[in-house]
Amino acid sequence: MHSIAELQEKVKQIFSQIDLDTEPRELYEPISYTLGLGGKRIRPLLLLMACDMFGGDLNDAINPAIGFEVFHNFTLLHDDIMDQSPIRRGKETVYKKWNTNIAILSGDAMFALAYKYLIRTNEKVLPSLLKVFNQTALEVCEGQQFDMNYETTKKISIDDYMKMIRLKTAVLIAGSLKAGAIIGGADSTDADHLFNFGENIGLAFQLKDDLLDVFGDEAVFGKRTGSDIVCNKKTFLYLKAFELAKGETLKQLKELFSSAETDKETKIKKVKNIYSELGVEHFAEEAMDKYHRQALTHLQAIKIGAEQKQVLTEFAAQLMKREK
Amino acid sequence: MHSIAELQEKVKQIFSQIDLDTEPRELYEPISYTLGLGGKRIRPLLLLMACDMFGGDLNDAINPAIGFEVFHNFTLLHDDIMDQSPIRRGKETVYKKWNTNIAILSGDAMFALAYKYLIRTNEKVLPSLLKVFNQTALEVCEGQQFDMNYETTKKISIDDYMKMIRLKTAVLIAGSLKAGAIIGGADSTDADHLFNFGENIGLAFQLKDDLLDVFGDEAVFGKRTGSDIVCNKKTFLYLKAFELAKGETLKQLKELFSSAETDKETKIKKVKNIYSELGVEHFAEEAMDKYHRQALTHLQAIKIGAEQKQVLTEFAAQLMKREK
Repeated sequence: MHSIAELQEKVKQIFSQIDLDTEPRELYEPISYTLGLGGKRIRPLLLLMACDMFGGDLNDAINPAIGFEVFHNFTLLHDDIMDQSPIRRGKETVYKKWNTNIAILSGDAMFALAYKYLIRTNEKVLPSLLKVFNQTALEVCEGQQFDMNYETTKKISIDDYMKMIRLKTAVLIAGSLKAGAIIGGADSTDADHLFNFGENIGLAFQLKDDLLDVFGDEAVFGKRTGSDIVCNKKTFLYLKAFELAKGETLKQLKELFSSAETDKETKIKKVKNIYSELGVEHFAEEAMDKYHRQALTHLQAIKIGAEQKQVLTEFAAQLMKREK
Repeated sequence: MHSIAELQEKVKQIFSQIDLDTEPRELYEPISYTLGLGGKRIRPLLLLMACDMFGGDLNDAINPAIGFEVFHNFTLLHDDIMDQSPIRRGKETVYKKWNTNIAILSGDAMFALAYKYLIRTNEKVLPSLLKVFNQTALEVCEGQQFDMNYETTKKISIDDYMKMIRLKTAVLIAGSLKAGAIIGGADSTDADHLFNFGENIGLAFQLKDDLLDVFGDEAVFGKRTGSDIVCNKKTFLYLKAFELAKGETLKQLKELFSSAETDKETKIKKVKNIYSELGVEHFAEEAMDKYHRQALTHLQAIKIGAEQKQVLTEFAAQLMKREK
């Protein structure tokens, strides 16, 4: 068994060694650039952890781990076009730095590349591995579509939102874990429990993201807070606030999220105040804890010793406590 | 062994049965629409033919055949965004009918869907099948990138052009055949010969496309000829004409392909006249025949009886003689 730090180091090493020095450069340079932007590399890390947990050979897991991360980065690349986001991880997004066509096509190539890495593993596990990956990939697209739909839908419930982030975020985290379990030799019941663990951790992870974006400590968070508020993003906090607000507060909320006139900083400050008044932060934390607990129940159900689950338990706790 | 007509009927049936009645509709409707536009369905047909040729079970080939066609249609969908083409197969393209975001995302989902179909086959062939498909998918992206590069590159040779259409068109045709061979139980030498057959047929196929676009009989061709000329597309004919033209003819060609002022019909007529004067049609046909012959040499090298190769031989001949 390896520690979190050891596996993190392994992931870092893997990604420093990826060589995409191939023609045509216009296609591969944006891919290198995207993969070079870094990020938390949570999905490959979870895949390795899951494989390790079941006593699997990490060499069989490395390429599929790259595959999941390349796929994740491909979705971000295309999402950035669709959302017209100019900045990702502090740098220009591909469609801004190059152009939309380059971003579409290098994204497509990344998707193909993800599969190329994914299948470099023990052939015996290929059928189940591919099933998980294909289903996950399709669901991530569905999630992004729901997300785009919600931008123009008036009435969205918290259930709708949770369904959307389950697809858009949680299933890929869950899929990475299940893939690792399959490669590590887990039986299908255990692999499914780990998938459910991941799904719940994924939901909690997104709620933490929503919370940090509003209430994060900017010095630690590394970027300005309030971006979701500025974009009128319908997060858990937003939806909960609209669910709870009444009278003058509701009127004020509606105004803040509909007028384009309010100054950015004033808007963030005012919305934050309303969120605090209504205690939405508390509700989000409660929901996050609920998903975290549900995740742990699935982890407990897996038929291996508690000490083998330690790394994953610890890592999940870190994700919940993270400040960035 | 099945006849061309029987296999065509099978492919038609398969595609009439695909059910994509899933949520979110905004994602799946454009996919149904795209697959419903029809087209020649050459790739799934070739995959079935190749499987049949080696005595394979067509039931193992049906889903991968769908996979190849879904992938092909995905590339057209994204190409139409990049090329800003408003019409595909006589109907509005997805990005025009819906919007760019929908076209990007439903294309991505089609790519995932292609893999979902691809892997529904005999598990034993999965590793080799996926290798062919992944490599092909990546090369198709490379081909599209070269195609986009060439739009703004001044000096392109016929070799550059052939390299580009090898990637953009020929490898997918070749990949479909190789996949069918693998599923049908061919050994790797025979599968590779069939790939090479397909690559050469693919190149010849594209040259025929270039020819039909200029010299096709509009009544049979089903659409107006000359669209490549109008778009200043650097086809084999264009490149050969520039290679051969001298003096006044060269000057005239340069003018025709640089000025945006000339009336469409006049431009087509004038360019066609120059092509005829220089005999570029003849050169294209000669090249097409050369690739066709090279294809047949690879088919001959395959270690099965000539009667089993009959369907493929006949179909290749049809592709060369087609008038639309």
